[in-house]
Amino acid sequence: MTTVAAYAAPSAKAPLERTTIERRQVREFDVLIDIKFAGICHSDIHQAREGWGEAIFPMVPGHEIAGVVTEVGPGVTRFAVGDRVGVGCMVDSCRECDNCKAGLEQYCTGGGMVGTYNAVGKDGETTYGGYAEKIVVDENYVVRIPEGLALDVAAPLLCAGITTYSPLKHWNAGPGKKVAVVGLGGLGHIGVKIAHALGAEVTVLSQSLRKKDDGLKLGAAHYYATSDPETFKELAGSFDIILSTVSAPLGLDAYLSLLKTDGAFVNVGAPEEPVALNLFSVIGGRKTLAGSGIGGIQETQEMLDFCAEHGFGAEIELISASEINEAYERVLASDVRYRFVIDTSTI
Amino acid sequence: MTTVAAYAAPSAKAPLERTTIERRQVREFDVLIDIKFAGICHSDIHQAREGWGEAIFPMVPGHEIAGVVTEVGPGVTRFAVGDRVGVGCMVDSCRECDNCKAGLEQYCTGGGMVGTYNAVGKDGETTYGGYAEKIVVDENYVVRIPEGLALDVAAPLLCAGITTYSPLKHWNAGPGKKVAVVGLGGLGHIGVKIAHALGAEVTVLSQSLRKKDDGLKLGAAHYYATSDPETFKELAGSFDIILSTVSAPLGLDAYLSLLKTDGAFVNVGAPEEPVALNLFSVIGGRKTLAGSGIGGIQETQEMLDFCAEHGFGAEIELISASEINEAYERVLASDVRYRFVIDTSTI
Repeated sequence: MTTVAAYAAPSAKAPLERTTIERRQVREFDVLIDIKFAGICHSDIHQAREGWGEAIFPMVPGHEIAGVVTEVGPGVTRFAVGDRVGVGCMVDSCRECDNCKAGLEQYCTGGGMVGTYNAVGKDGETTYGGYAEKIVVDENYVVRIPEGLALDVAAPLLCAGITTYSPLKHWNAGPGKKVAVVGLGGLGHIGVKIAHALGAEVTVLSQSLRKKDDGLKLGAAHYYATSDPETFKELAGSFDIILSTVSAPLGLDAYLSLLKTDGAFVNVGAPEEPVALNLFSVIGGRKTLAGSGIGGIQETQEMLDFCAEHGFGAEIELISASEINEAYERVLASDVRYRFVIDTSTI
Repeated sequence: MTTVAAYAAPSAKAPLERTTIERRQVREFDVLIDIKFAGICHSDIHQAREGWGEAIFPMVPGHEIAGVVTEVGPGVTRFAVGDRVGVGCMVDSCRECDNCKAGLEQYCTGGGMVGTYNAVGKDGETTYGGYAEKIVVDENYVVRIPEGLALDVAAPLLCAGITTYSPLKHWNAGPGKKVAVVGLGGLGHIGVKIAHALGAEVTVLSQSLRKKDDGLKLGAAHYYATSDPETFKELAGSFDIILSTVSAPLGLDAYLSLLKTDGAFVNVGAPEEPVALNLFSVIGGRKTLAGSGIGGIQETQEMLDFCAEHGFGAEIELISASEINEAYERVLASDVRYRFVIDTSTI
């Protein structure tokens, strides 16, 4: 066991504070990672505040982890000391079900994936995430951060990147396709970059035009305010894919009306409350309302390689650990461009 | 103009009654059809009672029409006098949009398809449906009823058949696939027959086990009662496709939990009220909630040929025109096995 400094939420009501946690000894297939940067994902807040249901406390959030390998177990073949690596939303899964074998570990049906934090591993121990100095992870749940991608801007790709890349690939975003991204936040801004890099014609649908200049710089060809009812008239029947990255409940019927025949509205943001839907909205035009959760390990590697190849990471605001609670408030107020990343050397 | 006897709803509150309507003279590309049988679809009732919004009265419902050609216009090439033919839910569309050109006339974006009744044609005239002695239809919206398929059991295929065939094909029902059909009514019983004939392993999900023997005879391998909570535990994660044929609002989250990863829940029944949905139900397992509306003309022909090849039509209760109002009540009470078909010679 190794004692490491971390930031933890002691309970759903309390602010995060500095503490120490124990990391397990490096086992045969483990790598020990010196965490350099950890992104702050909206889902950290959902979980730390029990918005998505009962959680395990104390909680060390963080599933957008970038760092350097400092030790490897004797059975490790994929990584060596000094490698630049990332860890995303999961640190284990059953490895035996059809989904795990197909590289869809995030949809593991053999007990479910083991979350990077707020979960219990196969060894019965609670998992703690990336707001910490170090982490020990089985090499099969670690990915390589390509040269040319700085660790700080790479960190958010481990959740925000793969969460948008996976559905864009699955629903065939690419040349000739019109893709709308709803919400230009942590997920949305990466979604715009990725959809653009995939060759799609990208439109941002945001509440206001406040971030329009940013959106166009990130790769969007068009930018519309959803607070303007004209937007829904003008864009009716326009899109092959709408990727919704917002976790506030949307008026789904209005958004579905923006799809072409056979178009797909894909949720990666997850509202805490149920939403209402008129089923005629999907019957007319044979439309799809779907969801997608992160991506598998191999696809996460593919996504990092894709981003490196296209020369981009996330747009970030680097903060010190003492600013985490303030950052949470700013995320809730949509006041971040576009991802807070903790410099974990400040813990 | 030709005066023909018909059954019409004078208003949303009044029962249907015998009346006469005018059919247009046969134009260059028209066929005159002597209607032999007309199915009663639940959507006839939705429309005649304005459950789906404001309607045009008097209304002659009926979009499951089987009959024989008795006259053809000079430009008609596809049909001749004496041909056994059918007409479904539409009698025209723009013919120029991408969907019309792709054989998806039901999703016409050039003004929308012209419904067989409760609609206004391009000539500005109200359309009247199949509860009548005769109908005049452009040959491009008429299909051939294959030899070997009796006209009475063929009639319901024109809506119930294509409505279930099209999504089953689109979402790839076939050997190795597990398909659930929700509701064993007019649509559902045909859906079971078609899914079985396509080679899928079919499960019926019905409120009770009342029709279990029928379901198994129709081709289902399994039959479960959705009123039993154990059903949802036992069948969790089981299906590639769930075809919902019911127009009562369902607890969608529970049904979505029955899908495998990447499975699709497809609505062809259309509740009048919005339904509630927890988006986590589609995010976990990358699931699809979709809809589908009837099918194109070419696909309708393909479906009729498929049913003839497999030797089945609908299961019907033949009624005389004077029984229409009573039949409506029985449809609303789910008391029909499985489709009422009007012998239009009784009008």
